[in-house]
Amino acid sequence: MMAGNDIEQLISMLSRLPGLGPRSARRAALSLLRQPEARMLPLARIMESAARTVRTCSRCGNLDNHDPCSICTDSHRDQGLICVVETVGDLWALERSGIHRGVYQVLGGTLSALAGLGPDDLNVASLLDRVGEGNVREVILALGATVEGATTAHWLQERLAPSGVVVTRVGHGVPMGGALDVLDDGTLAAALTARRSM
Amino acid sequence: MMAGNDIEQLISMLSRLPGLGPRSARRAALSLLRQPEARMLPLARIMESAARTVRTCSRCGNLDNHDPCSICTDSHRDQGLICVVETVGDLWALERSGIHRGVYQVLGGTLSALAGLGPDDLNVASLLDRVGEGNVREVILALGATVEGATTAHWLQERLAPSGVVVTRVGHGVPMGGALDVLDDGTLAAALTARRSM
Repeated sequence: MMAGNDIEQLISMLSRLPGLGPRSARRAALSLLRQPEARMLPLARIMESAARTVRTCSRCGNLDNHDPCSICTDSHRDQGLICVVETVGDLWALERSGIHRGVYQVLGGTLSALAGLGPDDLNVASLLDRVGEGNVREVILALGATVEGATTAHWLQERLAPSGVVVTRVGHGVPMGGALDVLDDGTLAAALTARRSM
Repeated sequence: MMAGNDIEQLISMLSRLPGLGPRSARRAALSLLRQPEARMLPLARIMESAARTVRTCSRCGNLDNHDPCSICTDSHRDQGLICVVETVGDLWALERSGIHRGVYQVLGGTLSALAGLGPDDLNVASLLDRVGEGNVREVILALGATVEGATTAHWLQERLAPSGVVVTRVGHGVPMGGALDVLDDGTLAAALTARRSM
């Protein structure tokens, strides 16, 4: 019996969040408990609100307060350019970069025998529907440079081939700001293969 | 406009927790949003409950669902042995070790000109009251081995001297499992000074 039940439950639940271990969960709990009105209640309320209002976009698989999501309904974005990503986290990363001005398709994972994820588990049907409507010029596969990512990219390419849409994949190589001596052989090989004249 | 307002607010509030930066706050938010019913709502509810029920023990300064706290009212604990700590986090650390079978006094900080904390800001009055009742045999000062901790210990010793209670402080030295070559000079000096015959 270290402290009240509520405190122990709070620490236990916080420690299950990714990135928080038992130690940082205790620090987070203490920080919240020190300011119940200013910190803990507002966080509790936004969680309740988000649990109620946030839904998965039926068109692209993004998470948003609206369905279709604000990206799918944004008339300033290129609806003919679809970037396929594995997770909403990947979509957020691309949005932060501000590079992609098209729309998205969130697969919700990759084909993976290990994780038991087959074609039916991926959010692909709505991608094929959108391409089938005929207004899509290009599908960019922005999947991880992993075995599963490559397998999924290859499989998607085959599924999209009959439609005649242009399918591309993101480039592999040396990350900007990255030193060569810390990169693995696969990345170095990809960077050499993707070399360009200057 | 990266995502719905609720999502951005959730990430922003999570990123203010100690130990969570923007990146881990996004991962935590995504993990919660993926399981709104199973993860997010239960966490929100325990936060609301804790904000309502958890209070500061008026006797020792601990956080608990009850006042006085469950340690102060535990008849199996030695009420004549008070361990003085800086924060509730320190109290939790000692409780996990299971070493201390007495009770506590949580100061809520240390004397610190830098942090603007003076004698009136520390939770000391109730300690003097408890000692004044005459049932306390020993007060253990378990404060940090910092300038502020040492200053506060010295000041507390002077405040407690008139009562005649035994005042001790925790030992300083080499942490168990710690190698000597990574320790600072102050710790090494303290460890040498505190040497014992074997």
